[in-house]
Amino acid sequence: MGYFRKNIERLTEYQPGLQLVETDVVKLNTNENPYPPSPAVIKGIQKIGPEKLRRYPPPKGDKFRQAAATVNGVSPESIMCTNGGDELLTIAMRAFCDENRPIAYPVPTYSLYPVLAEIQNCPPIEIVFDEEFNLPAKLAHTGAALTIVCNPNAPSGTFVKAEELASLADDLKGVLLIDEAYVDFADKNCVQLTRDFDNVIILRSMSKGYSLAGLRFGYAIAQPEMIKALSKIKDSYNVDAVAIAAAAAAIEDQQYFRKNIEKIKNQRARLTEQLKGLGFSVLDSQANFLFAKCNNYKAAELYEKLAECKIYVRYFAYPKLEDKLRITVGTAEQNDKLLDALKQIVGT
Amino acid sequence: MGYFRKNIERLTEYQPGLQLVETDVVKLNTNENPYPPSPAVIKGIQKIGPEKLRRYPPPKGDKFRQAAATVNGVSPESIMCTNGGDELLTIAMRAFCDENRPIAYPVPTYSLYPVLAEIQNCPPIEIVFDEEFNLPAKLAHTGAALTIVCNPNAPSGTFVKAEELASLADDLKGVLLIDEAYVDFADKNCVQLTRDFDNVIILRSMSKGYSLAGLRFGYAIAQPEMIKALSKIKDSYNVDAVAIAAAAAAIEDQQYFRKNIEKIKNQRARLTEQLKGLGFSVLDSQANFLFAKCNNYKAAELYEKLAECKIYVRYFAYPKLEDKLRITVGTAEQNDKLLDALKQIVGT
Repeated sequence: MGYFRKNIERLTEYQPGLQLVETDVVKLNTNENPYPPSPAVIKGIQKIGPEKLRRYPPPKGDKFRQAAATVNGVSPESIMCTNGGDELLTIAMRAFCDENRPIAYPVPTYSLYPVLAEIQNCPPIEIVFDEEFNLPAKLAHTGAALTIVCNPNAPSGTFVKAEELASLADDLKGVLLIDEAYVDFADKNCVQLTRDFDNVIILRSMSKGYSLAGLRFGYAIAQPEMIKALSKIKDSYNVDAVAIAAAAAAIEDQQYFRKNIEKIKNQRARLTEQLKGLGFSVLDSQANFLFAKCNNYKAAELYEKLAECKIYVRYFAYPKLEDKLRITVGTAEQNDKLLDALKQIVGT
Repeated sequence: MGYFRKNIERLTEYQPGLQLVETDVVKLNTNENPYPPSPAVIKGIQKIGPEKLRRYPPPKGDKFRQAAATVNGVSPESIMCTNGGDELLTIAMRAFCDENRPIAYPVPTYSLYPVLAEIQNCPPIEIVFDEEFNLPAKLAHTGAALTIVCNPNAPSGTFVKAEELASLADDLKGVLLIDEAYVDFADKNCVQLTRDFDNVIILRSMSKGYSLAGLRFGYAIAQPEMIKALSKIKDSYNVDAVAIAAAAAAIEDQQYFRKNIEKIKNQRARLTEQLKGLGFSVLDSQANFLFAKCNNYKAAELYEKLAECKIYVRYFAYPKLEDKLRITVGTAEQNDKLLDALKQIVGT
């Protein structure tokens, strides 16, 4: 049209996973939690009256901020609520990056990072992971203004230890954002790094661990000075009154949360073992999905065959990814259906 | 901290109006609608079940898009949902502006525009309105990549005719964004311009006319090609499942909406007349607030005196604004309390 900045004109937009309208499918393609959110969430939403809708919400989402601070053992001033974790990525990009201030991240990883870099017209420095998805040593020496490590990483599900990221944070002159969208399914997290380093930002999401993908709620953990500066960039009212109430109710119900996570971890272990039995190579996952290499079948064809059975997983037509499928861990029943279909297709 | 871009370091953040926790106050300071949203909204929210929360929302907010298209007589492809109208401003800024692509707007106006310009590191060209807030002729010749006209304008409440904005759109080489956040209270709007010009974007908000400030929901109207390009910049899931359902329910209930607006227009007429009777100069308003010049009293002092009576209006300590108060039109009862207090303070 000629009205846009050149970087926007040439931009290929981010492709989210297929959001199917049908409900009679086995949907293991976008890493949603297969179990419902805590019943406290629905109760919290139903308590919302007209007055809360009519008035602007509390700009900082104080109720959630307080609850998330308690759960993470930090101060409320160390928390910033965002409209999904994605909004925090956008805010960080606008805060630290531009034409002369690059971003760096190891690849393959969350494919939104290069899209946001292009929107910000900022050069992306992509360092390739080795086969085991170990943290690349080169990442410490890129000179980037912002370095992102997705941990657990998507789509590999692999986890880099906190000590290694601490060492990276220490080496970097710029900011280290650790994208912990999937950390609720991991055995450990990196929140301690926000206490030790003023250049570390942790991203959290309520979409996966708390079954609230429909709600769009994420948050940042960082030192108060960093949170204060990032908050200048966010819209005044970036999270809404209903979402604040619902997300706060979810994170306050830690008992429900832990049970939910336990169920998924159990299913993850079972699915990993069964897939290996069917001839797949499966990386050890610390997330709610598995990254499975199809040794005896083309991944693209397998994706199609499964879709014919109304079972949806994620296939990425990119180098280093195109021989694998990313499979969200579902309920026992969903995983059974997937395994049955795979047995039919690839044989036993 | 040294980690941020220079433009972010020097940025003074946008100051939203005071969001009071107390409920026993007369809150006429942030242009909320004094009446509750349609009862259909609460019903819509209460229908949300765990499944809608667990899964990602429809990326384009189709239900709302369809409803808004019908109301505005455009196609659903001409609509983009945003997380409040403010998110559309941010998206437009990132789409069109940078260091070498300035933004232009007449002032005084919505004080978020210069903040967003600074975040985008884009030079703002501010053209001063005359005393009657007529559209400045110079606005057509700034060479800006993006021109914003807030219409009705905040904080003046004044309205520029569609024909004048059509002529501006025709003259401009860049994009014209018409911020119609308050247009629900005006006699006319500029939606026709999106049919006639490929460089016009209209911003709408559900916060004011539909009493949903707590929900964060706005939308763009523009030609489908423009909407498609802008959508590349928004987050995949920028509006949540609950907000889509609630906003769609609100915009579908046009009967309730029209009654609500009528009540506010009646109160606006009454409040204007009474304020004039108390010695204020009041501009004719097409919005849900009045911009009143205190001829016999210092505005800052009047603001303080009213706050002592638990009545909150908006005072701006800026040149050309500091002799006036912006007063949201409230319910009949709220307006009575305001007028009674003013009579006590300024005398009759």
